[in-house]
Amino acid sequence: MNEKLKPSDIHQGDSLPSVVKHVTQQEINLYAEASGDFNPIHIDETFAAKTPLGGTIAHGMLILAYASEMMTKAFGKSWLEGGKLSVRFKAAARPQDTITTSGKIDSIEFKEGISYVNCSLECCNQKGEVVITGGAVVKLQ
Amino acid sequence: MNEKLKPSDIHQGDSLPSVVKHVTQQEINLYAEASGDFNPIHIDETFAAKTPLGGTIAHGMLILAYASEMMTKAFGKSWLEGGKLSVRFKAAARPQDTITTSGKIDSIEFKEGISYVNCSLECCNQKGEVVITGGAVVKLQ
Repeated sequence: MNEKLKPSDIHQGDSLPSVVKHVTQQEINLYAEASGDFNPIHIDETFAAKTPLGGTIAHGMLILAYASEMMTKAFGKSWLEGGKLSVRFKAAARPQDTITTSGKIDSIEFKEGISYVNCSLECCNQKGEVVITGGAVVKLQ
Repeated sequence: MNEKLKPSDIHQGDSLPSVVKHVTQQEINLYAEASGDFNPIHIDETFAAKTPLGGTIAHGMLILAYASEMMTKAFGKSWLEGGKLSVRFKAAARPQDTITTSGKIDSIEFKEGISYVNCSLECCNQKGEVVITGGAVVKLQ
């Protein structure tokens, strides 16, 4: 974890460190236990197969966690303690998908001694389909 | 899961079904496994005790998952398949905290045959401190 990231350490246009994750039913099940969200669309393969989705899907927040991990890698404590996140869930992620996160520093604004780092971020599957798209803001003091 | 929620089922001012969760180190550890985010600030109590945070904290996305569970309870498939989320992380949640989510339908907009349901949401701890605040938009067709 970056303990003391300074505004001088980051620059507009910088890419954020990608995170690549393979989604498995086992991780989805673990996630259900951790979050307490046992909706059958995530964990009951027989039930899910009969729905229009045609099979289980990962919790959206599990995929968003990958993007958050990228933000933690890039900004450490500054992200963990007071980030802002705005995202859109575009598609479901499924077991056996490989999700790659990507992000970029779009701009940095200075206001009253604080740097606001505006980032764009995306989570895509192995076919290049966007699963989550959005932005995040980190405050650096 | 609500399979087919219709615009007529929801109304401006409606409260969303609260979710109450007790945070434990065990769940945080499970979450680390599920998400692959093993940052020591979340799972290493000895390390975390020596940082300015003074102890382990839950992954922000774990707490956000509680809010998402509330959205799934309220909107089912419509939330899972294409929700929009905009949140700010205000404070860390810690083991032994009890987090309560709350939400409300602020407004409903109709555009080209689609209802956009604008919700406000909040996750608070047992002291009433806001851990996450923000909003979400769900599309109903």
